[in-house]
Amino acid sequence: MVANFGGKSAIVGIGATEFSKNSGRSELQLACEAVVAALKDCGLKPDDVDGMVSFTMDSTDEIEIARTVGLGELNFYACTPHGGGAATGLLHQAAMAVSTGAAEAVVCYRSLNGRSGQRYSDGVSGDLITSDLIHWGWHMPYGLLTPASWVAMFTQRYNHLTGCGKDNMFEVARQTRDMAVNNPAAFFYEKPLDREQYDKAKTIVAPLDLFDCCQESDGAAACIVTTPERAKDLKQEGALILGVGQAAGVDQEVMTSFYRDELAAIPSMDIAAQQVYAQTGLCADDIDAGVIYDAFTSIVFWQLESWGFCKPGEAKDFVMNDNLSLKGRLPCNTHGGQLSEAYIHGMNGVNEGVRLVRGTSTNQPEKDVNNVLVTSGVGVPTGGMILGKMK
Amino acid sequence: MVANFGGKSAIVGIGATEFSKNSGRSELQLACEAVVAALKDCGLKPDDVDGMVSFTMDSTDEIEIARTVGLGELNFYACTPHGGGAATGLLHQAAMAVSTGAAEAVVCYRSLNGRSGQRYSDGVSGDLITSDLIHWGWHMPYGLLTPASWVAMFTQRYNHLTGCGKDNMFEVARQTRDMAVNNPAAFFYEKPLDREQYDKAKTIVAPLDLFDCCQESDGAAACIVTTPERAKDLKQEGALILGVGQAAGVDQEVMTSFYRDELAAIPSMDIAAQQVYAQTGLCADDIDAGVIYDAFTSIVFWQLESWGFCKPGEAKDFVMNDNLSLKGRLPCNTHGGQLSEAYIHGMNGVNEGVRLVRGTSTNQPEKDVNNVLVTSGVGVPTGGMILGKMK
Repeated sequence: MVANFGGKSAIVGIGATEFSKNSGRSELQLACEAVVAALKDCGLKPDDVDGMVSFTMDSTDEIEIARTVGLGELNFYACTPHGGGAATGLLHQAAMAVSTGAAEAVVCYRSLNGRSGQRYSDGVSGDLITSDLIHWGWHMPYGLLTPASWVAMFTQRYNHLTGCGKDNMFEVARQTRDMAVNNPAAFFYEKPLDREQYDKAKTIVAPLDLFDCCQESDGAAACIVTTPERAKDLKQEGALILGVGQAAGVDQEVMTSFYRDELAAIPSMDIAAQQVYAQTGLCADDIDAGVIYDAFTSIVFWQLESWGFCKPGEAKDFVMNDNLSLKGRLPCNTHGGQLSEAYIHGMNGVNEGVRLVRGTSTNQPEKDVNNVLVTSGVGVPTGGMILGKMK
Repeated sequence: MVANFGGKSAIVGIGATEFSKNSGRSELQLACEAVVAALKDCGLKPDDVDGMVSFTMDSTDEIEIARTVGLGELNFYACTPHGGGAATGLLHQAAMAVSTGAAEAVVCYRSLNGRSGQRYSDGVSGDLITSDLIHWGWHMPYGLLTPASWVAMFTQRYNHLTGCGKDNMFEVARQTRDMAVNNPAAFFYEKPLDREQYDKAKTIVAPLDLFDCCQESDGAAACIVTTPERAKDLKQEGALILGVGQAAGVDQEVMTSFYRDELAAIPSMDIAAQQVYAQTGLCADDIDAGVIYDAFTSIVFWQLESWGFCKPGEAKDFVMNDNLSLKGRLPCNTHGGQLSEAYIHGMNGVNEGVRLVRGTSTNQPEKDVNNVLVTSGVGVPTGGMILGKMK
C-alpha cells in the first residue's frame, strides 16, 4: 500500500531561536519565538494557522503556544512519539492533515532546553519499570542507561561485521564539522575538527568518543506546512513534501531492539525508505543532498545503506573521499548537523532541508538541488521524507 | 475548509477487557487483551495491522503492544493529547491514515488502571508549574486541583445562566444508570438509581455530587479501522466513519479556560460539531443515538447544545421527559456511559457507538439506528464523529 499524499503539501515557512547551551528562558517561550519566526518567514498571519503538531516528548502544549502567539481555532493537533524518531513524523502528520483538508496550515515545532534543562546524556533514572518500558529492565541493570550506551552497542556490532572503524567515523564527524564552520548559527561555527582533536577527545561509551556525539542544546525550531496552492501566494518559495513515511520494524523497541536476531540491523529505516521511494518514484540516484539524522556519527552509516546510497556494509567506504562534502556525491548535513550545529531533535534539520531546496543554505551546493532527503532518528520507530521544488 | 475523509474508513472490530476497580494486572497487559479481542472480533490477523494510535496519556507504547501481540511492521503511529478530549481524536487519526493509504488497518486503544493505579480524582500535585501548564498557577492555589473542581466551576456558571439545576442533572444520571442496569459489563449493572440515593450522596465539589461523577475504572478498550473495501470481507458489519473532527477554541486551556469572556462557553465542541456536520451533510435531526462524553453529568448539557439537539441554554429541558432514554428523542449512552459503565476515557463509548450501528447494544433502540454521534471530553481540545451503516 502506497500513501497518496506525496506532493500535496509544502513547507512554506521556517523559524528557529538561536541555539545555545543556556537559553535563559522557558521552553514555551522558545517555542513561541520559533513559531513567530516561521510565520514571519512565510508571511502567514497567526490566525491562518489551524493545525499544530509536535513531539510527545515536548513539554509545551500546542494550545499554550496558540494562546501566547495569538493563533485562532485549531482543527487539527497531534503528537508523534519516540524522541528523534518523530522529526519527520511531524511532517507526516502535516502532510496527511493538509492533503485531506483536516487543516490548511499546520505548524510543526520542537522546543527544548536540552542542555540547561533535562539532559538526555543524564540517562534514565527514577521509575524505570513502567509497563511500556519493561524491556528496559533487561539491560538497564548492566549499565546501559544512556542513548550513547545503547547506540554504542549497535555500533560495536556494526563495526565488527563491516570493518567500519574510527577512520570512517572521523570522516562523518569532520565533514559535518566543516559545514558548521561556515554556519553562524552552529555551535562549532569557525571551529574545524582535526584528527588529533578527534582522537584525543574523551571516550563517552566505546566506540563513541566525544566528537561522535551530538550537541546538547537549548533552542526551538518550527516550520509551517500548507497546500501547494496556498504556497504560491506566500513570501518564500515552498519546499514540496514529495513523500514522507513512518516505520516501526518487527520486534521494535525504543533505542535498543537488542533482542532481534541481528543487533546491527535497523529495519525501520529500511521500511521508511521503501515507503518514501514508492510514494515518490525516486531512488537514491535522484537525491541531491541529505539531512541525515546524526545524534551519533555511527548512525549515519546505517542510513546511507537504508536509503540505497551504497550497499549494506559499504557505508564505511562511501563516507571516504569527501562524499558527504559540498562537492561529494551527497552533500550532507550542510547546517553542521546535530553533531555540530545543534540538537533540536531533528527539527533544525527539517529547516535545513527547506533551505537546501530554496538554495539558501550557508553551505549551498553549487549543483542544482532538486530533491533533498531528510531523516529522523534511528534505533526507535522512525521515518524520512524527500523535499523538492514546487512544480 | 472541509476535510475529505468522510466515509472513507470504517471501524470493523471492537474489543475490551472487563471493567473493574482493581484489574490485578499491568496496563500493557490490559491493552494487549483489548487489541486481541478487537482482532478476534473482526477476523483480522495480527500482522494485518500496520498502524496504531493512542492517547499521549496512555502509558503503553504501541510498539510494546505490537511486540507482545505479534503485530508486524507499522507504517503509522501517533498520539492525541488532552485526555478524554482525545477519544474520537484517535479515530480522526485513523480516518486520515486509512483514507490517504498511510496505513490499511489502524488499531486505536486506551488502557488504564484508573482506580487501582493513578486516580484522576487525586488531582494535580507535584511539579505543577511546567512551561506548558503555567496557567494552572493562576487557579491551583485556590484549591482547584481536580477535574471535578474545574468542571464544577463551569457548571455553577452554566446553571446560573440557564436555570439548569439538580433536577436536570439527576435526569442525566438516572437515564444513564437505567442503561447500565441492562449491561453486564457495567459497574452499575442491575443497580438503578433513584432520586433519594442521588440526593443523599456526598458532595464532591458543588454542584457536583457523587453520582454526577463518572467511574474511576481499570480496563482497556480498542477498535480497528480499515478501508470500506477491506471491511466487506470481515466477520462483522463495519461502522462507517461518516465524519470526524477535532477542535480547540481561541484561548483554549486544559479543562479550565477560566479566562475567556464567558466561563460557561465551550466553543471547541461547537467547532467540532460544525466540522462534522459539514463533512457529512447531516444535522441533529439525522442523529438516531448518541454516545456523549459524560465524565460528569453537567457536561452532557453543553454537548446537546453544541450538536444542535436543542437551542443554547435549553438542554435542561431537553433531558427531561426521558429524551435520553431508549424511546426518547436521543437514546444516549446506551452502555451506561462513563457515569455508569466505566471510565475508559471515552474509548468504551466508541465501541458502544459501533454496537449501536451494528444493532448489538444491550440497550439497542427499537427504531432503525442509522447515524450515531460519538463525542470526546469537553473543557479540553476535543472532537466528535458520526458513525453510520456501510453503504
